[in-house]
Amino acid sequence: MSKADKLKARAPRGFADRGPAELAATERMLAAIRESYELYGFEGVETPFVEYTDALGKFLPDQDRPNEGVFSFQDDDEQWLSLRYDLTAPLARYVAENFDALPKPYRSYRAGWVFRNEKPGPGRFRQFMQFDADTVGAASVAADAEICMMAADTLEKVGIKRGDYVIKVNNRKVLDGVMEHIGLGGDDKAGQRLTVLRAIDKLDRLGLDGVSHLLGAGRKDESGDFTKGAGLNDAQILSLMQYVNWQSIRLQPAASDPSKMEVVPDHISPNMQVVEALRSAFAGNQTLDDGLEELETIATLIDAAGYSDRVRIDPSVVRGLEYYTGPVYEAELTFTVTDEDGRPVRFGSVGGGGRYDGLVGRFRSEPVPATGFSIGVSRLFSALRMVKSPIVSGAEQPGPVVVLVMDKDQIAAYQRMVSTLRQAGIRAELYLGSSGMKAQMKYADRRQSPCVVIQGSNERERGEVEIKDLIEGAKAAAAIASNEEWKAARPAQFSVSESKLVEAVREVLSRHFA
Amino acid sequence: MSKADKLKARAPRGFADRGPAELAATERMLAAIRESYELYGFEGVETPFVEYTDALGKFLPDQDRPNEGVFSFQDDDEQWLSLRYDLTAPLARYVAENFDALPKPYRSYRAGWVFRNEKPGPGRFRQFMQFDADTVGAASVAADAEICMMAADTLEKVGIKRGDYVIKVNNRKVLDGVMEHIGLGGDDKAGQRLTVLRAIDKLDRLGLDGVSHLLGAGRKDESGDFTKGAGLNDAQILSLMQYVNWQSIRLQPAASDPSKMEVVPDHISPNMQVVEALRSAFAGNQTLDDGLEELETIATLIDAAGYSDRVRIDPSVVRGLEYYTGPVYEAELTFTVTDEDGRPVRFGSVGGGGRYDGLVGRFRSEPVPATGFSIGVSRLFSALRMVKSPIVSGAEQPGPVVVLVMDKDQIAAYQRMVSTLRQAGIRAELYLGSSGMKAQMKYADRRQSPCVVIQGSNERERGEVEIKDLIEGAKAAAAIASNEEWKAARPAQFSVSESKLVEAVREVLSRHFA
Repeated sequence: MSKADKLKARAPRGFADRGPAELAATERMLAAIRESYELYGFEGVETPFVEYTDALGKFLPDQDRPNEGVFSFQDDDEQWLSLRYDLTAPLARYVAENFDALPKPYRSYRAGWVFRNEKPGPGRFRQFMQFDADTVGAASVAADAEICMMAADTLEKVGIKRGDYVIKVNNRKVLDGVMEHIGLGGDDKAGQRLTVLRAIDKLDRLGLDGVSHLLGAGRKDESGDFTKGAGLNDAQILSLMQYVNWQSIRLQPAASDPSKMEVVPDHISPNMQVVEALRSAFAGNQTLDDGLEELETIATLIDAAGYSDRVRIDPSVVRGLEYYTGPVYEAELTFTVTDEDGRPVRFGSVGGGGRYDGLVGRFRSEPVPATGFSIGVSRLFSALRMVKSPIVSGAEQPGPVVVLVMDKDQIAAYQRMVSTLRQAGIRAELYLGSSGMKAQMKYADRRQSPCVVIQGSNERERGEVEIKDLIEGAKAAAAIASNEEWKAARPAQFSVSESKLVEAVREVLSRHFA
Repeated sequence: MSKADKLKARAPRGFADRGPAELAATERMLAAIRESYELYGFEGVETPFVEYTDALGKFLPDQDRPNEGVFSFQDDDEQWLSLRYDLTAPLARYVAENFDALPKPYRSYRAGWVFRNEKPGPGRFRQFMQFDADTVGAASVAADAEICMMAADTLEKVGIKRGDYVIKVNNRKVLDGVMEHIGLGGDDKAGQRLTVLRAIDKLDRLGLDGVSHLLGAGRKDESGDFTKGAGLNDAQILSLMQYVNWQSIRLQPAASDPSKMEVVPDHISPNMQVVEALRSAFAGNQTLDDGLEELETIATLIDAAGYSDRVRIDPSVVRGLEYYTGPVYEAELTFTVTDEDGRPVRFGSVGGGGRYDGLVGRFRSEPVPATGFSIGVSRLFSALRMVKSPIVSGAEQPGPVVVLVMDKDQIAAYQRMVSTLRQAGIRAELYLGSSGMKAQMKYADRRQSPCVVIQGSNERERGEVEIKDLIEGAKAAAAIASNEEWKAARPAQFSVSESKLVEAVREVLSRHFA
């Protein structure tokens, strides 16, 4: 076959391979998250990657795209199957299917890969991992408050310092109330409300100005692409901006003269201040009042448990998914990183979630309240690398001891040495290639071997092996000037009786690894 | 929405959910396998679930089915993508794509889900997990020998006892040689050879009789379905049967009179005896001789490393996949279980693999030799449950301590108790439902809580909490006859000052868990 006929080896666009360092570090991170979730009484459950398409429903932010953001294919009996696009829709199916057998409330967690049929970009993959925790069957917002505290504990457990993150909480009912307030209530306006929601969800990325265009006629991005807006008028946009940009509205009617406004006093907690500020800014309708009452309960629980410095009520959080019905939350890392254009930006969201009381109910006649939180595993992982979390940096381990092949007809003897080392619990391998000494040493270097074991005919006659400490050797090589001096000194190299192989290798390992 | 309109909640056919006990035990099993592979110097790598269809190639045993056994779908730019059906084809793509950056030989391992678009059945899923280890870039069969020894060590590490398993090794070249020997050589007979291969691969399930039908005109199964055979004549079938059923051919030309046969003497190892027996039964052609020479090298290395009681040369192993080119191996559990019809059968294969020298070469101009082994994770897991491996049984852990909600307006106080317990590292949760005391106790039972924490108004006034030891309580309840007696004794229940909550709970935990 000519070279031109050969297949091109490449992973599909938007899909990535993962090497040993990333795998080991991610594994440790996942174990820490799992431990944190278990401390909160959550138990593991996993669903398959594939679901019937109708069971997943259409809740993706990009649902208006032609392929709806989901990879789908037909079963041999013509039924449509899809790769899951998140872990919440499959959980709803699982709970509905096993409802009677599960303890209620049902607390569960799962880590898993999800798939989006979207245009890939830098840092934007079509396969990525989420780590979710959900409480199903609890209508009380105590469940939401707890998940927010768990999110905070989990971030600290994996190595994000207190002060470097914030869990922001809001309530969809509050936003719905504000929308009713400005004339966007009613079933016929559902589409418009969704557009508003998704516009506000882009606040972090587009800023107030960009969002207000998306709320109005529309917005042209840098590439010239135009996104149609929600078509609101100026007064409506102003109200929403006032709501979203809540920092400017920490005011309440003055006690002395209710026609005037005063700054909310400090004797209530910051979270309570936000609730009070919202209450004063938007005259009550039922939806909004319900939402604020729930936020108030959450604020009380958060304050009582001592989490009010980490879990904060913040009206700008909306979450892009359509299925949320009550509290929504977002885990945001607040430290600064440099973006693609070299500008300093907040690291931003590493997870979020909210209450989805309608999702399990799609399958069942009774309503089943539920709330959950999802960590973006890759996002969090890159954050941990940036802050040099011990979870990530502690995952590194030395490479295997390599037994070199000096004489091909002695392979069985070398194999025995390798087996001896392994039986002593030492990572070891026989060099399996066909190259000479130099290439074998290069191989050991690439594998980050702490040492190699050498037995040529001279050593064999003496019943000895030579051990070469590669870490010590590299240090010595850096210190010794000339090549001749190096060869004369043969640093970090010594012979021992073959029967002392294990002890000698252990001795080298103990020099470098505690 | 009426009940009839509701979606039916069900996982797709052939896909399964996994609960906490299975997840935790599987996790431990995977960690043990990983540790074993790392001891052998293998390092982790993972590829995505999706590959370009052409990169995967068509090597499945069922490739003649219309949908070719693979789930495929089109990308938005019309390129065909497939869910991977094994971990070998994606590894070949990965190695070819990153060839220059990888150490060679390249030893790697990966655990991952694979997908088959096949008819599901009992114990036959369309999503299942494999755990693979491969050595790429080593032409030497020392690599194959090593993987066989690693397979043996790995089975023991997860809890399969020596004597309860065997790693069987064969060589495709030997079978190819036998086929040439009986007139099935040449490109035009490739299809027929594949049919022969797949027939022999079914030996375990169909027995000698079933296989000989598949080698001849064909076979009708119990359901009446007819499978077309390879169309061999009786002499050809007899030769293949003699080859496969090697136990009967441990003979060699007698030293005293080479025209007579004698039993192979005992002073060579059992593995060598098989090699010699095959050599004497099938007059040499080049392919067969090459194969036997490789088997002999493997037998030498196995014997030298002391694995000849666990790794055995066995000509009946062929493996169904088309891409194998040299040594093939199968990990078989030899203990007996009961099949669906109540008959005792060997547990059978939990993994296998072999040399696939052509697979990476599909992408590159130079040949790249490779060999690998794959564990069927679910199969192995059910075996571990059957033999009650400590890996599986040790994965159980106590449920969370449940703090009951006696007064709804005290939720913040209960939440504080839960936080206190968690901060002390004790799994704990607040009851989040809306039911009364009885349902809460039932909930704690279902969660397998070791104890519950109760504070009603009486305890609160005294600054106390009541701890109820559910494990002790269950024992006492079994011993106490009458309900009145039970209520009077209130066994396993005691009050402590709220400030002693953590100590008291720790004391209960230490009663039951070392």
